[in-house]
Amino acid sequence: MEGLSIVGKSTQNIHALQKVTGKAQFASDLEVPRMLHAKVLRSEHPHALILNIDTSKAEKLSGVRAVITAEDTLKKPVETIWRGIPDKHPIALDKVRYIGEEIAAVAADDELTAEEAVKLIKVEYEELPAVFDPEEAMKPDAPKIHDVEHNIIPGIWRTDAEHGDVEKAFKDADYVFEDRFTTHYSHACNLETTVCIADYDSSGKLIFWENSVDPFRNKPLVAKALGISGTKIRVLQAFKAGGFGHYQMELSQYVITALLAKKSGRPVRFVNSRDEELTATRPRGPLITYLKTGVKKDGILTARSIRLVTALGGYVGFGHIMMATSLLPATGTYRCPNMKLQGVCVYTNTCPTGPSRSFGTKGPQFATESQLDIIADKLGIDPLEFRLKNITRAGDTTVVGQKITSCGLEEGLKKVAEHVDWEEKRKKTPNKGIGLACGMSHGDQREGRFAGSVAYVKVLEDGSIKINSGEFEWGQGSHTLLSMIVAEELDVPLELIEFPHLDTDVAPYTLGPFGSGRITPTAGQAVRLAAIDAKKKLFQFAANMLEANPEDLELADQKIFVKGSEGISVSLADVASKAKLGQKNPEEIIGKGTYDPPTDFINMKMLYGNYSQSYVFTAQAAEVSVDPETGQVTLLAHTAAVDLGKIINPMAAEGQVHGGVATEIGYSLFEKIQMKDGQVLNPSFTDYKFPTALDIPRTKAIFAETECPNGPYGAKGGGSFSGIAANPAIANAVYNAIGVRIKDLPITPEKILEALKHKK
Amino acid sequence: MEGLSIVGKSTQNIHALQKVTGKAQFASDLEVPRMLHAKVLRSEHPHALILNIDTSKAEKLSGVRAVITAEDTLKKPVETIWRGIPDKHPIALDKVRYIGEEIAAVAADDELTAEEAVKLIKVEYEELPAVFDPEEAMKPDAPKIHDVEHNIIPGIWRTDAEHGDVEKAFKDADYVFEDRFTTHYSHACNLETTVCIADYDSSGKLIFWENSVDPFRNKPLVAKALGISGTKIRVLQAFKAGGFGHYQMELSQYVITALLAKKSGRPVRFVNSRDEELTATRPRGPLITYLKTGVKKDGILTARSIRLVTALGGYVGFGHIMMATSLLPATGTYRCPNMKLQGVCVYTNTCPTGPSRSFGTKGPQFATESQLDIIADKLGIDPLEFRLKNITRAGDTTVVGQKITSCGLEEGLKKVAEHVDWEEKRKKTPNKGIGLACGMSHGDQREGRFAGSVAYVKVLEDGSIKINSGEFEWGQGSHTLLSMIVAEELDVPLELIEFPHLDTDVAPYTLGPFGSGRITPTAGQAVRLAAIDAKKKLFQFAANMLEANPEDLELADQKIFVKGSEGISVSLADVASKAKLGQKNPEEIIGKGTYDPPTDFINMKMLYGNYSQSYVFTAQAAEVSVDPETGQVTLLAHTAAVDLGKIINPMAAEGQVHGGVATEIGYSLFEKIQMKDGQVLNPSFTDYKFPTALDIPRTKAIFAETECPNGPYGAKGGGSFSGIAANPAIANAVYNAIGVRIKDLPITPEKILEALKHKK
Repeated sequence: MEGLSIVGKSTQNIHALQKVTGKAQFASDLEVPRMLHAKVLRSEHPHALILNIDTSKAEKLSGVRAVITAEDTLKKPVETIWRGIPDKHPIALDKVRYIGEEIAAVAADDELTAEEAVKLIKVEYEELPAVFDPEEAMKPDAPKIHDVEHNIIPGIWRTDAEHGDVEKAFKDADYVFEDRFTTHYSHACNLETTVCIADYDSSGKLIFWENSVDPFRNKPLVAKALGISGTKIRVLQAFKAGGFGHYQMELSQYVITALLAKKSGRPVRFVNSRDEELTATRPRGPLITYLKTGVKKDGILTARSIRLVTALGGYVGFGHIMMATSLLPATGTYRCPNMKLQGVCVYTNTCPTGPSRSFGTKGPQFATESQLDIIADKLGIDPLEFRLKNITRAGDTTVVGQKITSCGLEEGLKKVAEHVDWEEKRKKTPNKGIGLACGMSHGDQREGRFAGSVAYVKVLEDGSIKINSGEFEWGQGSHTLLSMIVAEELDVPLELIEFPHLDTDVAPYTLGPFGSGRITPTAGQAVRLAAIDAKKKLFQFAANMLEANPEDLELADQKIFVKGSEGISVSLADVASKAKLGQKNPEEIIGKGTYDPPTDFINMKMLYGNYSQSYVFTAQAAEVSVDPETGQVTLLAHTAAVDLGKIINPMAAEGQVHGGVATEIGYSLFEKIQMKDGQVLNPSFTDYKFPTALDIPRTKAIFAETECPNGPYGAKGGGSFSGIAANPAIANAVYNAIGVRIKDLPITPEKILEALKHKK
Repeated sequence: MEGLSIVGKSTQNIHALQKVTGKAQFASDLEVPRMLHAKVLRSEHPHALILNIDTSKAEKLSGVRAVITAEDTLKKPVETIWRGIPDKHPIALDKVRYIGEEIAAVAADDELTAEEAVKLIKVEYEELPAVFDPEEAMKPDAPKIHDVEHNIIPGIWRTDAEHGDVEKAFKDADYVFEDRFTTHYSHACNLETTVCIADYDSSGKLIFWENSVDPFRNKPLVAKALGISGTKIRVLQAFKAGGFGHYQMELSQYVITALLAKKSGRPVRFVNSRDEELTATRPRGPLITYLKTGVKKDGILTARSIRLVTALGGYVGFGHIMMATSLLPATGTYRCPNMKLQGVCVYTNTCPTGPSRSFGTKGPQFATESQLDIIADKLGIDPLEFRLKNITRAGDTTVVGQKITSCGLEEGLKKVAEHVDWEEKRKKTPNKGIGLACGMSHGDQREGRFAGSVAYVKVLEDGSIKINSGEFEWGQGSHTLLSMIVAEELDVPLELIEFPHLDTDVAPYTLGPFGSGRITPTAGQAVRLAAIDAKKKLFQFAANMLEANPEDLELADQKIFVKGSEGISVSLADVASKAKLGQKNPEEIIGKGTYDPPTDFINMKMLYGNYSQSYVFTAQAAEVSVDPETGQVTLLAHTAAVDLGKIINPMAAEGQVHGGVATEIGYSLFEKIQMKDGQVLNPSFTDYKFPTALDIPRTKAIFAETECPNGPYGAKGGGSFSGIAANPAIANAVYNAIGVRIKDLPITPEKILEALKHKK
């Protein structure tokens, strides 16, 4: 784009200095005077009735200030955003459904005392038979977890949609392929565990300092669970150590902390240990993907049926959204006119699942991209050529209604192929292989009537700029990006822009940065419009001061002047001061921007709708070597081309690609929550293997820039989506290296050795 | 006023519960994690050169985190509001001019260590001759404190104005009276001493928690003294234990605390001991009033000359404003066409003075009202009748330009006379007496181009209301009063109104509640207009929802309905929710109110202008008995009629009258800062006698309600002005009791015995 001075240039994160110097205060760094420490007694059984809870010994322990059980709650389940099923109580009422469920909580002078007190609470259980696997749970004789048939969650949780004539298309296909793929439990592994501090101020207002990712929507729900109005809660955010969707859903900690604060009359701090975090806070759930694909001899896809089964754990939350965001993106990468989409959400006696790094998209995209290579192999078509034949292109409306206004898939595939020297690398080298995969995700997601962003841009009396937006920073660089947009529009240096941390009492309502990339397209537009509006107001005032028409004015270097006569000017500071203090009716120069993306709320029954204003695409190539003796996969290189539309901050976008790919490498090869009978076996970073720099090969990020008509400057969202193609690319590379197809992630040495044994 | 449901009814302070339960957090209750404690090394000499400061020992003391001297400052004097003379450095640079002046400061882990460190700082002084009395200081051979002639502060600090032809009027008068009256140093004695906590957040923004009374205007000045922009400072206010103007002026503590925070990298808390507060924070200054009055035989005042001399101490600040507010109100109580007004501000080696409970008004009003009784006595006219002959009346423009749009003086005098049974009581009873006095003050005071208030009233999605105003509460009940006005206009119960403590980053700019009563008339109008604007916006939205015209709507019981069809309605909550979340372009229902009073900035040279939108009046009667053996004055009863316009909250207004009278009783009879050679001799509440409940007689407050055309519902300001007539009323009662005239406050037993001796 022409004439941009900041947008499009690699820009250092505005918080970089604060973070590297250790000055940045994260939620877990915060202290509030007189603060108590909370600890939760969690269920040790996956399925049991609670017969009795005796808290008397805990209450008597010196230093204990409050003990609560379900008796202290409203005894109602907490509602969730996205109109989820409210089936989980903040503290278990009479039954526990997974190991780690909250049974009681303590606030004490220090953490150790709280922990000791928790151990003194005696719970009488009646153990119930439990079930952990979703397909087991659907069997007629399985233990019943909630009052639903076969543990299958009914209503919109049960997806069954068809577009085109799938039956006929399968009949007419030259080949039909059927495979079963499985993905596993993993955890977002935010470096900071769940933290919140609750305090009632003297007027009775409840203040939370916390690190959630959705305060505006969660606030009224927490309030409801406490029996107060949402306006009586104020959420203050500090720095956040990553979002990844993880904290979006669980609300029990807020209710518990607030109840403890109320009961003790003191501020209370809640922080999960890593053990609790990995055991009892919503992991990414497992997905079983039954994939059936019909294809013509020439390699054109004609029919597809995707059936997903997932364990949602002991409680649902908004698993239906997960199901939709699993099925929908999997349908958009390639053209295919006939599509059957089924999803089953099942109760199991495991920790309830939740959003975690590109939500549901991983399983189905692993399945479809793996199967594409199976098909290409069978048809004898090169996987690159096969993909290029079928990919979605700009101008398409996909079979599920996604309107593809821009698509960099072809460019991405070609750039990746060129960068890796695809033809050369595909030539057989023993135990070395290269694999290709594509992926697609949405840049936002519609919710309710207003799914947009509101921002205010204020010009202060010294000419500096203050952004008031409800969009929050969780470390992904959103404040930097939004500040860049304002700096661009008002031609001020980034240092003059202040973007305070979120205070829900001050900032305008927003949906928040969920959905792998709402910030850039939606919040970006809102701040851009706000800056433009502020500029208009500046010009109106300056026109009076300069005795000119607003249309004749220009802004540069923090000065406003009449075009062609740069000599006579007023500074932004002059204008803002004059407006605020120099007139009878003081005004502040505040621009307002509102942007609601032109999207549809998904029809959950039909699974149809243009739910995102833009769709992002990726094409990736993984290069591996596999040791046939040990089954060890070594990643040699990884190349990821992404179409994020116009790139606003290349440095940050590249970082997002690297981060997305890195975590997916872990998910592909080793990262997994190990469970036995509902008990997490590796709830620590010693046993839960998370990828570190040592596990990541040379990774190349390529931007296949397109211009999105909806986004600011043509930009789309980024988010952690960029990893979604890495899993199947690695699986395809492994197949290319040693000829075994692993359909169950992670691709461990054991599975490879086992597969090699069968192959022989 | 008809149809008012809340305004005019005694209403409990909205903070009452928080305060009586001890939950309210005052600035001195606040803690910030990792906070250090500051202590200041203060000058022990009234006038000396600083030759050397050795901080090395202090720096080495364990627990000391930072030590600063003038070397750490910008070495420039701090500017003050009201365009005062910037002559005082935040830390003395090379010379000290009063005992208590800041020389160095320390931040340490605890207060004791800080105190110990302060003692370890060695200062080498060269003592200079000092002068303490203003009339001494004006003599040619007096020590020179600053580089000005005769220690007289030149420019607008030297008032010399004349209205009418004073010379001629004195010639034409039948009698001319000349007297000299003196008033003394006293202290506002806020229950909380000066407190502030400074902290730099990780972005470098400087946050102050403090208890000043003028954060909006002081912020940019403190910023300047620190070399940063005012937008880089955020002031957060907690509860405040009284204002009384006291904290308005001194800024050194902010600069010192911020510098210590910067140097130590930690939050720093500054709190004065009572000793420091009484020694080194701006007391009310002493005033010498030379009063000359010409009067006709029939008792009509024709000419007056008032000459004031005051010691401003070592530094000026905005003493010129004190001089104007001393001279102007003294001219408005009675009609008098010829008036000479002179004021001289003099440097002395004493603590700089500042505003304190009705600022400068006490001295001149004590003089004029005492002299009125002297004249009445001479002329043989009853003091009540004499006053009624001369009082100002509604419709007058006084000789100094005050536009009297309403005046309850006549009603007040008559009501007081009736209540005390004046004629009966004036009959001679040995050693018992009754005295009368009137007083006048302004309800606000103009400063700069905008001297008004801006307020926002927001309707939240649950139908509750939030007020955003920069006007702050210091305990006088302003938040209650402003909430009452909003409750009145929007017909909601007071409990549904939230009025957060001041946050300068959030609230709109305001001048603040200085000047004995800006809140009610000015801020009251702003919130009223904001509520009316919010109602208009509610009606616009509701009209769409109800398919009606906004003009046909009515609001009651938090519902909006079409007049005459109460059955069909929408609640405020419905309307606000729909506006915020239910439409494409979300809006919040925010009403804005701006009110700039129709006043003039005083012409300081001419001392002419209508500087306040309304003037408040009081008539008071004191009843005393005097023991001729001991000289002890006992107050038997006090009656105060006040014209505050329409009374919005009678309970609160009555409280203000009681408080104002109580403190003036102290000032009349015993309260005084005792000084010797510039050293305060009684810097503790043990030795500084402040009135307690035991010192206060039965006090009756009477409202002589008028309707002010400018104020909300006809209200004027209140403030602590109501005491100004108590001093001369007591002096007049003493004269009435035993026939001695004390012209020098306080009226101590010693002075009475001395006067009785001379009388004999």
